[in-house]
Amino acid sequence: MSLKELIEEANKKAVENMMEAEPVLVDVKLAKDFIPGFKSDMILHAGPPITWERMSGPLKGAVIGALMYEGLADTPEQAEKIASRGDIVFKPNHEFGGACPMAGVVTPNMPIYIIHDKKFGNYAYSNFNEGIGKVLRYGAYDKEVMDRLKWMHDELFPALKAALHEAVKDKGGIAIKPLIAQGLHMGDEGHNRYIAITRLFLIELIPYLIQADLPKDVFMRVYTFAKNNNFFTLNIGMAAAKAMTMAAHNIKYSTIVSVLTRNGTDAGIWVSGLGNRWFTAPAPVPKGVFFPGFTQDDANPDIGDSSITETAGFGGFAMAAAPAIVSWVGGSVQFAVENTKKMYQITYTKHKYFTIPYLEFQGTPTGIDIRYVLKTGITPTINTGIAHKKPGVGQVGAGIVSFPFELFKDAFKAFVETYGA
Amino acid sequence: MSLKELIEEANKKAVENMMEAEPVLVDVKLAKDFIPGFKSDMILHAGPPITWERMSGPLKGAVIGALMYEGLADTPEQAEKIASRGDIVFKPNHEFGGACPMAGVVTPNMPIYIIHDKKFGNYAYSNFNEGIGKVLRYGAYDKEVMDRLKWMHDELFPALKAALHEAVKDKGGIAIKPLIAQGLHMGDEGHNRYIAITRLFLIELIPYLIQADLPKDVFMRVYTFAKNNNFFTLNIGMAAAKAMTMAAHNIKYSTIVSVLTRNGTDAGIWVSGLGNRWFTAPAPVPKGVFFPGFTQDDANPDIGDSSITETAGFGGFAMAAAPAIVSWVGGSVQFAVENTKKMYQITYTKHKYFTIPYLEFQGTPTGIDIRYVLKTGITPTINTGIAHKKPGVGQVGAGIVSFPFELFKDAFKAFVETYGA
Repeated sequence: MSLKELIEEANKKAVENMMEAEPVLVDVKLAKDFIPGFKSDMILHAGPPITWERMSGPLKGAVIGALMYEGLADTPEQAEKIASRGDIVFKPNHEFGGACPMAGVVTPNMPIYIIHDKKFGNYAYSNFNEGIGKVLRYGAYDKEVMDRLKWMHDELFPALKAALHEAVKDKGGIAIKPLIAQGLHMGDEGHNRYIAITRLFLIELIPYLIQADLPKDVFMRVYTFAKNNNFFTLNIGMAAAKAMTMAAHNIKYSTIVSVLTRNGTDAGIWVSGLGNRWFTAPAPVPKGVFFPGFTQDDANPDIGDSSITETAGFGGFAMAAAPAIVSWVGGSVQFAVENTKKMYQITYTKHKYFTIPYLEFQGTPTGIDIRYVLKTGITPTINTGIAHKKPGVGQVGAGIVSFPFELFKDAFKAFVETYGA
Repeated sequence: MSLKELIEEANKKAVENMMEAEPVLVDVKLAKDFIPGFKSDMILHAGPPITWERMSGPLKGAVIGALMYEGLADTPEQAEKIASRGDIVFKPNHEFGGACPMAGVVTPNMPIYIIHDKKFGNYAYSNFNEGIGKVLRYGAYDKEVMDRLKWMHDELFPALKAALHEAVKDKGGIAIKPLIAQGLHMGDEGHNRYIAITRLFLIELIPYLIQADLPKDVFMRVYTFAKNNNFFTLNIGMAAAKAMTMAAHNIKYSTIVSVLTRNGTDAGIWVSGLGNRWFTAPAPVPKGVFFPGFTQDDANPDIGDSSITETAGFGGFAMAAAPAIVSWVGGSVQFAVENTKKMYQITYTKHKYFTIPYLEFQGTPTGIDIRYVLKTGITPTINTGIAHKKPGVGQVGAGIVSFPFELFKDAFKAFVETYGA
């Protein structure tokens, strides 16, 4: 077989695996109980690897909050000292099978969702979603943030654990792919719009919360928190997307992108046929719609593992399914539709299960192929939350951003070096 | 003021009232406890007035089932005898402030939803939804149908009553207009697609079901029935639409259609400025997509009060918001969008609160104006369920249908006779 044929075969397998993965939510655990060798001096984060010195404000803010959450620091100043003197080992979530939004900071005692891919056997994780505004993942760490994290640990975590225990008994867990597929027919795209998917998920979850016999006040607090947070299911969708892309990763000769992420300083990608090798470039600043009192000047460069959704063929790539999202991320409906159409030019296939009613049920653009990015000069364009560039502030808006071309050029070069021209 | 100016002023008021109505679900009651003078020999039905002899199969089937439900007949044969010998008084729901899907049969001991318009004070009702397929409202009446109706009376009705009692205590009831408005941003149109609205409604209802302290098994049965029925909220949406159109009715000089309905034999309309005067014409047969085993030949002429949704500016008129509906009612997404665009030509305004993301958040076509129907020759085109033409069978599909031009011509003639040319 020629190299071209080998690549075609590999890519076909990669996207097929990605689409056929069956991510099921099976449990919630503390991170230390799921991630092997997770020690108290370790912090996982979004995006490619980065040192404390090079971290942007929101990632630093999240690290500060996480150290206080773990009881390793009493004040932000103390936390900064600990982080800056090199006591902490920083590692990307992606290297441990995780994908977490924005700063994506995970420490040993944080609860995480466990996704099991029933088709290929992979496990993926993500952390819990706190809501919008002043939240840890956007770099905020005041009392309100810390109290909420404590409640999530003390009450939300055991409640979800009990409910998922019932779900696993009943039907092996909660299958996430059908919820995303249905969400795309209900105006969600699965990255910044989870209004339908969160409700579909809750409708599935409620009977198990009832079966779990929670005290009525606990049920009501859990239920109210979940129903008032449109992003409650984002992290679950991300862990599902991580599981899907894991099934497409590490396939020899494949030019399909299996990780697409950013840490607030750098953007980074993995390519299936090149394993866990990071290609990085400076993260661009998203253009967006800002919450009252904030402007484009406050925006941090792009941050978060949430672009795993686009990597798996939904999110920003499926914006034609979610016209109402433009009221959140800006732009026109026309732009949303055009972006989906444009992404077909850099993807290997159309999704078998994720379809867009408005495009006469066409599958979503799926499997970013670095060859097509090189050929067209078009790079993945996604929607994203926007963090304030200073630590301690939080989310200031949402918007649109395109990945730097350089990432794909470098990856392509490495591919040629590895496999020939 | 000239007649033209008087009409403009009246129509402006009519559509303004229609849009500003605030329908809130406040209670469920047995029909006899809500509708004054409702006696055991009375049956309410969808569409314009009709005698037993002229009733189509599905309406006859529903009457037969209703008489057995009320304990007035033990067998279908007995029921037919009772109905045909003139013992029963048949009346349209619309004359009592109601709107019920398909046969729309309501008898004294059937539970109904009560909608209170908090803006204009009107009350409207609809019956409970049984699901799809073999159900009373499509003319079926076998044991499965009768058992389900009994369960709805014995268990669902008191459960909803207890929950709504909590909802009224908490915030005056459950406001329906916001659910429809949000549903239109989630791929529903509010007539044959209630997938999002039903879930939005359930998410609102659940805490009140919990507060009502139902036994766990009752909660689970009620919850399972509701979540497995995508049409659970159709009837609530229809009662809300009835309340909206009541606020637009009986306005002197107004040429706005305030009732648009069919009984399986005739289609009928009311015009705001002409009061409760029926204009009727033969009901057309919908073209549709059929359940396995059925064809166009099985289709009964159009039936049901559900076109009250289009009368109020959503449903089939908002199909551009619900591209995925074409998998249920047939046609292409292109058709769905074009239908909404066409309906702007016969409506007085664009809705202030019901908007269509795909059309850059344009308001839905609202307030059918008989003058524009006359001028353009375009008649209201809606989507609809399709009943088998024989009694006892049930739903066989769903499709699209246009109202006969004659209705509007006759109404226009009567308008000229009443108010001058």
